[in-house]
Amino acid sequence: MTSFLYFDHLNQVYKMPKVVIIGYGSAGMTAAGYSRITDRKSQIIVFEKRPYAIYHPCSLPDVLSGYIKGWDAVKEDAPRVPNMKVLTSTLVEEIDPDNKKVIARNLKTGEKIIESYDKLILANGAKPAIPRVIKIEDSSNVFTFKVVEDGIEIEKAATKYKKGIIVGGSAIGIETAHALRIRGIDVTLIEYFPQLMPGKMDKDLADRVSNLLKEEGVNVVLGEGVTLIEGPEGKKLVHTNNSTFEAGFVVMATGVKPDTTLAEQVGLELGETRGIKVDESMRTSNPDIFAAGDNAEVTDIVTGRKTLSPFASTAIMMGRVAGINAVGGDESLEGVTNVWIINLGKLKFGAVGITENMAKKLGLNVFQVTVSTQEKLAIYPDASSITIRLLVHKASHRILGGQVIGDGDVAEKLNILSILIERKATVEELSRIETAYTPSICEVIHPLHTAADAAIRRLRRR
Amino acid sequence: MTSFLYFDHLNQVYKMPKVVIIGYGSAGMTAAGYSRITDRKSQIIVFEKRPYAIYHPCSLPDVLSGYIKGWDAVKEDAPRVPNMKVLTSTLVEEIDPDNKKVIARNLKTGEKIIESYDKLILANGAKPAIPRVIKIEDSSNVFTFKVVEDGIEIEKAATKYKKGIIVGGSAIGIETAHALRIRGIDVTLIEYFPQLMPGKMDKDLADRVSNLLKEEGVNVVLGEGVTLIEGPEGKKLVHTNNSTFEAGFVVMATGVKPDTTLAEQVGLELGETRGIKVDESMRTSNPDIFAAGDNAEVTDIVTGRKTLSPFASTAIMMGRVAGINAVGGDESLEGVTNVWIINLGKLKFGAVGITENMAKKLGLNVFQVTVSTQEKLAIYPDASSITIRLLVHKASHRILGGQVIGDGDVAEKLNILSILIERKATVEELSRIETAYTPSICEVIHPLHTAADAAIRRLRRR
Repeated sequence: MTSFLYFDHLNQVYKMPKVVIIGYGSAGMTAAGYSRITDRKSQIIVFEKRPYAIYHPCSLPDVLSGYIKGWDAVKEDAPRVPNMKVLTSTLVEEIDPDNKKVIARNLKTGEKIIESYDKLILANGAKPAIPRVIKIEDSSNVFTFKVVEDGIEIEKAATKYKKGIIVGGSAIGIETAHALRIRGIDVTLIEYFPQLMPGKMDKDLADRVSNLLKEEGVNVVLGEGVTLIEGPEGKKLVHTNNSTFEAGFVVMATGVKPDTTLAEQVGLELGETRGIKVDESMRTSNPDIFAAGDNAEVTDIVTGRKTLSPFASTAIMMGRVAGINAVGGDESLEGVTNVWIINLGKLKFGAVGITENMAKKLGLNVFQVTVSTQEKLAIYPDASSITIRLLVHKASHRILGGQVIGDGDVAEKLNILSILIERKATVEELSRIETAYTPSICEVIHPLHTAADAAIRRLRRR
Repeated sequence: MTSFLYFDHLNQVYKMPKVVIIGYGSAGMTAAGYSRITDRKSQIIVFEKRPYAIYHPCSLPDVLSGYIKGWDAVKEDAPRVPNMKVLTSTLVEEIDPDNKKVIARNLKTGEKIIESYDKLILANGAKPAIPRVIKIEDSSNVFTFKVVEDGIEIEKAATKYKKGIIVGGSAIGIETAHALRIRGIDVTLIEYFPQLMPGKMDKDLADRVSNLLKEEGVNVVLGEGVTLIEGPEGKKLVHTNNSTFEAGFVVMATGVKPDTTLAEQVGLELGETRGIKVDESMRTSNPDIFAAGDNAEVTDIVTGRKTLSPFASTAIMMGRVAGINAVGGDESLEGVTNVWIINLGKLKFGAVGITENMAKKLGLNVFQVTVSTQEKLAIYPDASSITIRLLVHKASHRILGGQVIGDGDVAEKLNILSILIERKATVEELSRIETAYTPSICEVIHPLHTAADAAIRRLRRR
């Protein structure tokens, strides 16, 4: 074990606080960075089981499509930062919370590594989840799509068999179907619910996405539950409650669940979401252990309830808070809006806050307005249009959610809504936002103004 | 004079409140729309001196460049709205505030029109301003660029003489220079101050704009004041304090000033900015007269002082408030952030709030941070980068201003800053915004996070 000592300008010796971070994904990387920035004297050690330090999981479909050239492009070395070590190919096998030690193993040499910590951050993310109702009799050429190696395998199978089935119509399923079509692969996408992005987007808007995929040549199968996957590589059979599909390979895009193996081994409390329970400072039930990212639960700022938020965008927010607090800083995360976006080129879409269905489940009295408007005047050759749906709380006029779809700047609309939802803003406040205008970018009446006005008119009619 | 009566559902007869609006630009058009929405029974009459109801002034450079095809494309008829009349080619010559009447003239027939009003909205905008120090001995082929007719004249001269001079390096001057270069015209742009966008942007960032114009082939002349313009059409001589330039035509882009002729005739109070003085409800010193748009002054939300805000984006905010209140609604405008953007294709740039120079003039203790960062990972073929500068108040940590320049989504950054500045947010609040992530659109660490972090680190070092 290495010992880190620090000499200050008076030549006094300190033992530097040591932060150990498990996992170097979005949460772990951000935690490490903010620990470093917050306390320059702290020592940071990261254990990452992957053979490479950094990769960009959300860019994997863009490599699969060929938009980014080569799988190595999405890998990166850890930044060289003083007093920070990122140990790759190193799997943490055990945590000893009583002696504040982490026991890991170098996956290449088999060497055992014992490292003490002052504060520990669990940032080891989520793992693919396959519903139990799906029986996989033969798992050859059945892939999940989470790391670079998965992508390489999928590409190999796609190149060989030209025909694939994707199970699951959420973000990864949609992006993978789109990517494989760009490569000319024959793709069937099967979703259990009668719409894509179930729970995340209203059906009518999600249908615009499935229509685009169909136009691109994807065979979109909605409302059929996969029951059995069988057959050897190259001749996979996917049975649903209704029919049978055949292809050379299968990608399981059926979601992820928090990886809580280590947390449970240490006896950390889990929440009702089955994510690690943390407070606003990202502290777990053990005050020396923080958790951040896909393995931890977080407060939904709209509902006030705990939720899983498996987005890189919220992982970095959680990682930031954990990293700052692990070295004695004081930061907190009240909650998240869960804003997300998917870019299919011709169509970008996303949502923020909650949906009407969720609001109704919570017994909230809400209404929705939907506006479809020009983002840019039709006289421009690259004119774009956008559809915005707002979910509004009747009594308070607060914006509880938003869905945006179009070929223009969808991210901007979602981000503005995210900021306003986080600040508990009303539709009247949205109607007063001041935005920059030049006609080659955006209309002078901002699409969000149009949406806010529609909501205000509706409130007035009641 | 027409008389408007309204029968309600009990068959009672009301006289409908009559709103007269002078000017159908951004402010007038928005005022008319919101009067209509707010009170469906009100009668709205708009007087517009142009022969066409609507045009898009900010799109004129895009027609000049050829990006939009044909000058007619930027003209539009007024929308057909019940109980609203837009009289074009109609110049208001006099207002009789005692009898609440407007006296106008049909510019085509010469006919005199007298119209009574319950509430009057002055939305007749600004007029080009040419500094007195510039002596124009021969005004042939010396143009301003405000309406469609100006554009047609400039295009004619550019086609004939292939060589032009633009006086003034703010928005219109820059956009016109850029547009004429796209048409292959030999362009010299002369600016009195040693930088483009003086007062609106810091010199080092403005220099990136002038470098782009130079790369495009514009002869950018900074720090030279034009003193005399002489010579006949086709052989114009523009003398500065330092040299003489020769071209076929000249565009004067030296700014605008509020058109207060009618306001002064009625005896309305003007502010120290020489714009019409209005309160937060856009009411002038005469309670039955509102003013909105470039002719009125407005509060700068950052300084709390009155300012002129000659942007369509703020004109619509003022017009909205005037339109709502003119029919008895209750809306107010606390102030504006003055967010603006210019799109030169390869480079987009803009600012919001105040600059460091202005802060220092006001005696505010501030600092600036500047970050240049990837907006999109370099592995993407359309990777973009962005520079963000924040102006921060030391004691309160409040964001007082922002400048953004880059080839990516500059508008989004400015709009988010505008919303946060309007809400008096701190850099810590900026560091906590939650934004949607997909790598083909924007990095997971949002460039505004990077900027906020830089500011927070600076505050910590003090």
